[in-house]
Amino acid sequence: MAVYTEVSFEELEAFLAGYDVGAPLTFKGIAEGVENSNYFLQTAKGPFILTLYEKRVRADDLPFFLGLLEHLAARGIACPLPVRNRNGEQSARLGGRPAALLTFLNGLSLRRPEVSHCAAAGEALAAMHDAGSDFALRRSNALGHKGWGDLADACIPRADSVEPGLGELIRTTMDEITAQWPPQLPEGVIHADLFPDNVLFMDGKVSGLIDFYFACNDACAYDLAVMLNAWCFEPDAAFNVTKSKNLIAAYRRKRPLSKSEIEALPILASGAALRFLLTRLYDRLNHDPQALVRPKDPREYSKRLRFHRKVRSVAEYGL
Amino acid sequence: MAVYTEVSFEELEAFLAGYDVGAPLTFKGIAEGVENSNYFLQTAKGPFILTLYEKRVRADDLPFFLGLLEHLAARGIACPLPVRNRNGEQSARLGGRPAALLTFLNGLSLRRPEVSHCAAAGEALAAMHDAGSDFALRRSNALGHKGWGDLADACIPRADSVEPGLGELIRTTMDEITAQWPPQLPEGVIHADLFPDNVLFMDGKVSGLIDFYFACNDACAYDLAVMLNAWCFEPDAAFNVTKSKNLIAAYRRKRPLSKSEIEALPILASGAALRFLLTRLYDRLNHDPQALVRPKDPREYSKRLRFHRKVRSVAEYGL
Repeated sequence: MAVYTEVSFEELEAFLAGYDVGAPLTFKGIAEGVENSNYFLQTAKGPFILTLYEKRVRADDLPFFLGLLEHLAARGIACPLPVRNRNGEQSARLGGRPAALLTFLNGLSLRRPEVSHCAAAGEALAAMHDAGSDFALRRSNALGHKGWGDLADACIPRADSVEPGLGELIRTTMDEITAQWPPQLPEGVIHADLFPDNVLFMDGKVSGLIDFYFACNDACAYDLAVMLNAWCFEPDAAFNVTKSKNLIAAYRRKRPLSKSEIEALPILASGAALRFLLTRLYDRLNHDPQALVRPKDPREYSKRLRFHRKVRSVAEYGL
Repeated sequence: MAVYTEVSFEELEAFLAGYDVGAPLTFKGIAEGVENSNYFLQTAKGPFILTLYEKRVRADDLPFFLGLLEHLAARGIACPLPVRNRNGEQSARLGGRPAALLTFLNGLSLRRPEVSHCAAAGEALAAMHDAGSDFALRRSNALGHKGWGDLADACIPRADSVEPGLGELIRTTMDEITAQWPPQLPEGVIHADLFPDNVLFMDGKVSGLIDFYFACNDACAYDLAVMLNAWCFEPDAAFNVTKSKNLIAAYRRKRPLSKSEIEALPILASGAALRFLLTRLYDRLNHDPQALVRPKDPREYSKRLRFHRKVRSVAEYGL
């Protein structure tokens, strides 16, 4: 949520010379995205986002991320489309970093989505899964269940300093996930971070999905489990079963869920809660006070994790 | 250069209900301005900037700042124009803070302005002084020469930790300024912070002046002295007399300088350098590591101050 790399007008001009988008009319750093620097750019050809990829995004992964956006956009998914430069490349260098120019999508993200928004977002997720099913490149999920062990080991020793009992919660959840993680769910390209921040709405309809920099190949139902966490809890931490019911129903209308996917939802939802708990906890425990980003509260996700661990039947998700 | 107050879509919707600008199409936090939170907002009626005034801007000063923008815009100065709400007010409340909606100006600020840009910016400053001459409200310069003593006292004890000899430089400059500050220069509404960041260009012409939140009543020639500091030094700290010559000449074509104003330039330029040295030094010495803004280097301005203190004739500014 900050601009890490400042781009001068002169650097921008040199960069844009490689593109067929005309001269810049407006150029503003925006507070958005994971750990990238993002600029809003307006030219006579329209509005764009200019993204400079900072350390968290590996340059090796850019062909996957940018190729995926091109693939999805070609199949009608409203997502940013990388603008290729005069050499036909999807990315170039700017400020010593890989950088890409992407089309800008109108729409606003909601802080408090209502039931209808949850349904619209669930449907958009299924459409993305469908459209991504024939994408040729692959990227494993660096923050998937096989990667949680290392994060858990790094966090457990100091976890109780953030919340008493948190170390034990992480340990027992890790044991359960190792023993019970469903082995053979249908896989595809997943967004892996489809929070309300990353869904734009206009007039109550989804106008865009953004921030694909965690996208990877993993179980499609895990993506749904991320959304149950990110969209269906109220500010007072209560789970809103009407939201999850409508979100899942809208998803299933577009992409049917198998019996094994449905049965796996509680453990997938626990896993998704653990993933965000662990990364937030790690960031909190290892926060650089010089950083321009304030770490998010991990306890939001310990509460969600405790909820999922008590779920005895998928009926509790409205199924 | 950060967003301090996050505004949700729902809060924005409620705020915009008070304005006749239509529904939001896009809303992005932007990294800009002093210590305010700024958002880029697009509606069917066009692009706007939404500013939330954080602690550094006193709510009592808003009628001056916003009234000045309205006054200048009415006189043809390209500056943001506050959009009045349905109650006819220039500001309202949002996120617990005073907030204003302003028209958005196209254009880009330059990191390395050339001679022609310095001239164009100098002319724009003179036009602003002219247009502001009949503005009815008054605001004293909180960061004018009478305010530097307190800042200097707060900084001197630890100044040498930033640069050896800095405390002594500040002390002797303060003594000189107290003894020699010109008493009766022509006054008017000045911008007081017209750095290259705050001047937008399109096709080599000034398309807008922004960030008027240090504007006040003070000597017009002091505003020019600020620009000599902010526009006419090269990255290697050398003073570029061609830039100052052209900047001052362009200013004078629009607003003549009196003999006393010209003679006062060296001391005014020392004062302006001291002002930015002191505020940067204070921010550096009192930096909150949790802050979202990295303090700027005060030593840039100690170098400029040492230059002005050696000036023996205004010929050294190209006059």
